[in-house]
Amino acid sequence: MSSNSSFFGDLLTTIADRGRALLDRSGRTNGATRAATLVDRCQELLSGRGEASGVALAAEILSRYAQMKTGERIAFFEALLEVFGPDLARLDAAIAAYAAKPGEAAVAELHAASEPRRQQLFRRLNMATGATADLVHMREHLMDAMERRRELAPVDNDFSHLFSSWFNRGFLVLRRIDWSTPANVLEKIIRYEAVHAIRDWDDLRARVDSPDRHCYAFFHPAMVDEPLIFVEVALMRETPGAIAPILDQTRDPIAPGTATTAVFYSISNCQRGLAGVSFGHFLIKQVVEEISREIPSLTTFLTLSPVPGFRKWLDGERRAASSAVLSAADQELLALLDSPDWIEQEAVRAELSPLMNALAAHYFLVAKTAKGRPIDPVARFHLGNGARLERINPMGDLSEKGVAQAFGTMVNYRYVLSDIEKNHETFAAKGDVVASAAVKKLLRGESSPRALVPTA
Amino acid sequence: MSSNSSFFGDLLTTIADRGRALLDRSGRTNGATRAATLVDRCQELLSGRGEASGVALAAEILSRYAQMKTGERIAFFEALLEVFGPDLARLDAAIAAYAAKPGEAAVAELHAASEPRRQQLFRRLNMATGATADLVHMREHLMDAMERRRELAPVDNDFSHLFSSWFNRGFLVLRRIDWSTPANVLEKIIRYEAVHAIRDWDDLRARVDSPDRHCYAFFHPAMVDEPLIFVEVALMRETPGAIAPILDQTRDPIAPGTATTAVFYSISNCQRGLAGVSFGHFLIKQVVEEISREIPSLTTFLTLSPVPGFRKWLDGERRAASSAVLSAADQELLALLDSPDWIEQEAVRAELSPLMNALAAHYFLVAKTAKGRPIDPVARFHLGNGARLERINPMGDLSEKGVAQAFGTMVNYRYVLSDIEKNHETFAAKGDVVASAAVKKLLRGESSPRALVPTA
Amino acid sequence: MSSNSSFFGDLLTTIADRGRALLDRSGRTNGATRAATLVDRCQELLSGRGEASGVALAAEILSRYAQMKTGERIAFFEALLEVFGPDLARLDAAIAAYAAKPGEAAVAELHAASEPRRQQLFRRLNMATGATADLVHMREHLMDAMERRRELAPVDNDFSHLFSSWFNRGFLVLRRIDWSTPANVLEKIIRYEAVHAIRDWDDLRARVDSPDRHCYAFFHPAMVDEPLIFVEVALMRETPGAIAPILDQTRDPIAPGTATTAVFYSISNCQRGLAGVSFGHFLIKQVVEEISREIPSLTTFLTLSPVPGFRKWLDGERRAASSAVLSAADQELLALLDSPDWIEQEAVRAELSPLMNALAAHYFLVAKTAKGRPIDPVARFHLGNGARLERINPMGDLSEKGVAQAFGTMVNYRYVLSDIEKNHETFAAKGDVVASAAVKKLLRGESSPRALVPTA
Amino acid sequence: MSSNSSFFGDLLTTIADRGRALLDRSGRTNGATRAATLVDRCQELLSGRGEASGVALAAEILSRYAQMKTGERIAFFEALLEVFGPDLARLDAAIAAYAAKPGEAAVAELHAASEPRRQQLFRRLNMATGATADLVHMREHLMDAMERRRELAPVDNDFSHLFSSWFNRGFLVLRRIDWSTPANVLEKIIRYEAVHAIRDWDDLRARVDSPDRHCYAFFHPAMVDEPLIFVEVALMRETPGAIAPILDQTRDPIAPGTATTAVFYSISNCQRGLAGVSFGHFLIKQVVEEISREIPSLTTFLTLSPVPGFRKWLDGERRAASSAVLSAADQELLALLDSPDWIEQEAVRAELSPLMNALAAHYFLVAKTAKGRPIDPVARFHLGNGARLERINPMGDLSEKGVAQAFGTMVNYRYVLSDIEKNHETFAAKGDVVASAAVKKLLRGESSPRALVPTA
Repeated sequence: MSSNSSFFGDLLTTIADRGRALLDRSGRTNGATRAATLVDRCQELLSGRGEASGVALAAEILSRYAQMKTGERIAFFEALLEVFGPDLARLDAAIAAYAAKPGEAAVAELHAASEPRRQQLFRRLNMATGATADLVHMREHLMDAMERRRELAPVDNDFSHLFSSWFNRGFLVLRRIDWSTPANVLEKIIRYEAVHAIRDWDDLRARVDSPDRHCYAFFHPAMVDEPLIFVEVALMRETPGAIAPILDQTRDPIAPGTATTAVFYSISNCQRGLAGVSFGHFLIKQVVEEISREIPSLTTFLTLSPVPGFRKWLDGERRAASSAVLSAADQELLALLDSPDWIEQEAVRAELSPLMNALAAHYFLVAKTAKGRPIDPVARFHLGNGARLERINPMGDLSEKGVAQAFGTMVNYRYVLSDIEKNHETFAAKGDVVASAAVKKLLRGESSPRALVPTA
Repeated sequence: MSSNSSFFGDLLTTIADRGRALLDRSGRTNGATRAATLVDRCQELLSGRGEASGVALAAEILSRYAQMKTGERIAFFEALLEVFGPDLARLDAAIAAYAAKPGEAAVAELHAASEPRRQQLFRRLNMATGATADLVHMREHLMDAMERRRELAPVDNDFSHLFSSWFNRGFLVLRRIDWSTPANVLEKIIRYEAVHAIRDWDDLRARVDSPDRHCYAFFHPAMVDEPLIFVEVALMRETPGAIAPILDQTRDPIAPGTATTAVFYSISNCQRGLAGVSFGHFLIKQVVEEISREIPSLTTFLTLSPVPGFRKWLDGERRAASSAVLSAADQELLALLDSPDWIEQEAVRAELSPLMNALAAHYFLVAKTAKGRPIDPVARFHLGNGARLERINPMGDLSEKGVAQAFGTMVNYRYVLSDIEKNHETFAAKGDVVASAAVKKLLRGESSPRALVPTA
Repeated sequence: MSSNSSFFGDLLTTIADRGRALLDRSGRTNGATRAATLVDRCQELLSGRGEASGVALAAEILSRYAQMKTGERIAFFEALLEVFGPDLARLDAAIAAYAAKPGEAAVAELHAASEPRRQQLFRRLNMATGATADLVHMREHLMDAMERRRELAPVDNDFSHLFSSWFNRGFLVLRRIDWSTPANVLEKIIRYEAVHAIRDWDDLRARVDSPDRHCYAFFHPAMVDEPLIFVEVALMRETPGAIAPILDQTRDPIAPGTATTAVFYSISNCQRGLAGVSFGHFLIKQVVEEISREIPSLTTFLTLSPVPGFRKWLDGERRAASSAVLSAADQELLALLDSPDWIEQEAVRAELSPLMNALAAHYFLVAKTAKGRPIDPVARFHLGNGARLERINPMGDLSEKGVAQAFGTMVNYRYVLSDIEKNHETFAAKGDVVASAAVKKLLRGESSPRALVPTA
Repeated sequence: MSSNSSFFGDLLTTIADRGRALLDRSGRTNGATRAATLVDRCQELLSGRGEASGVALAAEILSRYAQMKTGERIAFFEALLEVFGPDLARLDAAIAAYAAKPGEAAVAELHAASEPRRQQLFRRLNMATGATADLVHMREHLMDAMERRRELAPVDNDFSHLFSSWFNRGFLVLRRIDWSTPANVLEKIIRYEAVHAIRDWDDLRARVDSPDRHCYAFFHPAMVDEPLIFVEVALMRETPGAIAPILDQTRDPIAPGTATTAVFYSISNCQRGLAGVSFGHFLIKQVVEEISREIPSLTTFLTLSPVPGFRKWLDGERRAASSAVLSAADQELLALLDSPDWIEQEAVRAELSPLMNALAAHYFLVAKTAKGRPIDPVARFHLGNGARLERINPMGDLSEKGVAQAFGTMVNYRYVLSDIEKNHETFAAKGDVVASAAVKKLLRGESSPRALVPTA
């Protein structure tokens, strides 16, 4: 912003001066004071002054917030909870009015009266330049604070509600990520990759600048430098069973026009502050559309996915006094997993694989959470999107992380157009896991997927 | 969209086929049936199917809606009112729960339960490509329907609520409009100009392609071809008293660097479907910022504005059995306005001007609506933004429209940075009109602006 | 350019001051003096000073040139001819050296020595911002001057030589022109259309904003607002025989995906100053490529073209004491063309058409210029590009212009990929006109296309 | 390019087929054969076929060339020299015609006849997409070949001549390079940095993504991913004497608005194939303009430059039987440079610095090449641009490279607007080095800069 702008320059100076005056008056500016000052500004923003000079005032508030330390922020969040909650007097009146005379108007007033004032505050803060990203970051701070202060949850709900509306699918923009993407965006791809870490720029380049590798991200127009979610895709000629060959920087790329299978091998959400706003299934479906338009030879769309809950579940069964899943023979074989170098020994891996196949099938198809849903969060995501569990790949990811979470097991979820709705409904309505015949066959001696009979 | 995309092509074909099947089953497809079909689709969009294939389903609904005729649309709006209102059972339960145990959680449930289901429906419809513009147009149809069906107002309220959030200032983009702007945008500037009609492309060019003329508009990223609001600015060396010289296509432009005064001579909202979402004061303030950065010689920012309510008010006073404003001498002089050609006669105009000055001052400073606010809507807009009434210009607009609405009177509102907040609060709190000393002096023999003493 | 830039601001001021000083010294500044001053600056630009501050000096020269009047310009062009010609002493030395010791080095020196110094001057002038367009306009002025001063031709040759290199096909960018094109470019499309005048913005819109109409132009990166050449294309389902239905603003567009035939119905060069640099055949071929990629249903690519030389030729034959082409019966029939309203009478047009067909066939296939080439310049262009003469359309253009130049006759030239090279070579080598069998059959009783036997 | 394009697809297939047919006919395709085939294609490109389908033919030639190995390329370059030289018969005729009748027309014919045919060949090759970059690379290969085949120089001259015209300053675009620049461009900045190597992406980021660091590059529109030259600038508050603090990634940046001095600390040409086309002085001057517009507090523009020829010169003097520059005392002191660790010893560096100062002053001001010009190539560049030698910085670059080329000595060249032309002329006309008083004072006991009196 150039200093030529006397009008706007004055505007900012004026506000800053006034702010300083207020602070001076307070004698000292410790954390609580600073939070209190900020709360005053927020009150003003919701009042008439906000109407007159809202953009500048919102910018001032966000700038002050940015300089706060953790303690001050928590004080501010508490004020958001207590000072900027719903107007209870108005709410009581609205309830009474509704009781007296129900109808759309009374409901509308009830709805308005029950809205916490902080929602309007957030909307007004958003008037400032760059405010959307600032508010997303503010929620990240709030989520950190909530680890100890669960009572702040209502503030979080309001962020979540607002972001769901602002980050509506209709406002998102899909962009191909490649080697001509600006470095400040690529840097964030490196930072945000959550499934198979990108080690450095060379590793990144192998994933975005090869003819048989694509990467796509959603962006929001108010946060142009910040990917919201991205997916990495490998173009292949078969269903992959392991991640290492896909990530191998020295492999020979195939000609894209000869590919039959698009493999979604990594999906990462980028903005912790947008937790609860779902982008993933929109992204997968739009990328399927884009990529099949560009490469008509593609006929199969599937993932190569981690199984993050498998080891924890299996460890539980192994430790259990009496497992309904594991026979004594199973337990004995699984003891191999306790040797320090089983991963290196091909024979051991070969010996373990059939059992891991069977146990993973059980984990996916039979084991359930207390609410009767699959244990695995990645499974819940893809099955909820209408995919089906296509194949289990024991020893698919022998990296430290892959072993730590699933003894190396990976799976493929497959997206078949004509089945998506049916699969989704099957899963949503009854919690049934839609799986290929091959996966179902892996279940050992079970009369039905629902009843488990151990093999021994 | 290319036919290469087998996946997506199939998706659309599948949906279309299914749609056709449903329609066929219904036997016939008259208006009510079609609206009913659409309502079914909307129900699905809110259900699990919407989660699985929401984007395609939303596109289908909007495409069907686009083919509807007026009657079918009204049937659909009625369904939005009746079928997609709040869930009253849930609401009653929420009220009971709140009575039993007040607290943030109970209020949050109250808020959620009182939200009409159509709000979520609109959010899901917005997932389709281009849906935002479609929804804005849908509201335009609704507003038309409401002329006879006031009971649809709650649906309108929900549109208004959603658009206020989606079209938040933070999401808008300011763009200079000039002769290198795409023709499809310029065409809309011609169409939407609401103050001083743009006759043709030459007239447009005179307003956007001259060194001493600027034009700016706000856009939303989801509607890139559609200006939301725009303002036309003339760079001048004095405060203008008449519009004709500004619009004169043959005038000699001045060098922008010698200008001292930026004159906002026309502000037009473009999207009727966004009524109630206010853009105007943001636009004026941001343009002041932009233009003073570009042209540092500017020191004065003001409007040349119409007075749309003046004639109606004055006609009322003239017709009144006994006017507290007009003396008999006034009445006699004003009879000149009834001659067919008073506009052409310079002497008549000169004779009338002092009285028009005094009456306009009265109209702005003394006359009030039932709620105690200024009668003039343009005055309410600029005064509410923190401007002050700077000067009255009798005979400022002798066009047919200018005479029809204000006997030719125009005014200047001035934006002075350091006074904006104070002015705004003065006006908002007490309804007092902030005016220059020159304007106040025009009041005739009135001891104070609040008490009127007729001159006779 | 902001006034912040003290360095650059100083630079320009310094130069301007010095310039003023020089002018003052000269006492007066009439046209010749001004041209002389400009010549001095040009000398400096070619000297060491040009190396030190060439960009600013070039800008100064072009700015001074822009203010010159016709007479001064001619004086400047004369200086370009006389003062900035080749260095003859160096040339004589180079010839002597070549005679003494032929070889690449001696030839290179000959080549360098024979280059007029104005070529280097033009290259240095081009360093200034926007200079390329300025130089193109300078050549336009030169071409005007050459109407009376043929001796300036060598200067024109140097422009032509340089522009051929600068506007090499590899530097041109093809852009679709449509309704989202900036207005300042569209305005030039209106202005430059040379075949079928565009009456106004509505007429333009009908040609660029309809699903079955495309328009493409070449641009140069140094002149981004200036189309160099453009072509208008109609998507049709048959070979058109008349222009009026294509230009009809009220016609119903066809679905582009059902089109079989792309009709190039207007090609216009935009920059008179680029005369001699050929863009047309590159444009046609690249547009064929673009449009067939976008619309795979297209199988036929042809023009609907005027026949600008036909009437003049036919009038000559009619006036000739003895025509080898026209029989007495022909002459009698052609007398119908002398009636004032033959165009309006369908019966007359029907009576004339067979004869016009035969005569046009003769005009294209038999009649030749002194150099043995077709008389029609449009024919020479398309045949030289490798097209073939496909069909003759009597009464295809009954507009005033169409009648004035060809008694309404139009033709189609067809581009068939596999024949382009062969056609081009046939035409280039032997001057033979490649025509369809249908056109050849129109020749009357001629034993061979080369020998003409009148019918009578 | 999509396979939809039947027309263009056919075109390419046709050409490829024909090409294959020709190759098959030849029986085998060794290097010489392949070069011969390519020469045939080039002949066609210059003939009528080039006019008909030049773009495709040019693309084919460049594609074939790209697959050639070194030996084949050299065979092709020899053909360019021998087959595509000037038309000597035409040239002799032109000389005769000029002798018979001198005049502009005869000179023009001489000029045309003496142009090697390969120039037209290069211009036609440039018609293909991406050809400009291909031709630049072709010249790089040629330069490699010329290390052993000096006779190819005429071909190189023709490239140089053409590129000077195509890469005219007026066609270049200046772009700021920062962290939002596409990675494929940043990668080339890393690769092409020739003065102070960029070690990795972190090092790059420190140079382009810090508030007190700027980087600018020139681009050509036909090679958008390829910087031609770039300069790195540090914003500082004083004249720097050493490079290490500038490159230090851990330093604290200063606020740009407080900077007084813009330091150009690295300028690198990127395209070896554009050798001889000078971009450097245009870049420096335009960056001065840009940066002073953006940061008005800047008053001083200078470089921190290496002295690449200093050590070689000084080693020569040290080895000389009798040096006119070095006294015995000097020689003794300089022996310290032979110790392996003099760089690490601050006391040694301090002892050496005064002598290095004096010797460097001599090197710049007194020592000359055989042609009477400064020995240092960097000095010739900046002095030729009109800069002056401002300060000598012994021990300014203690990196391996800095010691290897100059025993650590660096210098500042300063650009002062009002002196640029005068300095340039002083230097160009008389070879005099313009230096600050401080530098001149460093000369030891010399009565004048031109006469050297050793100190002893």
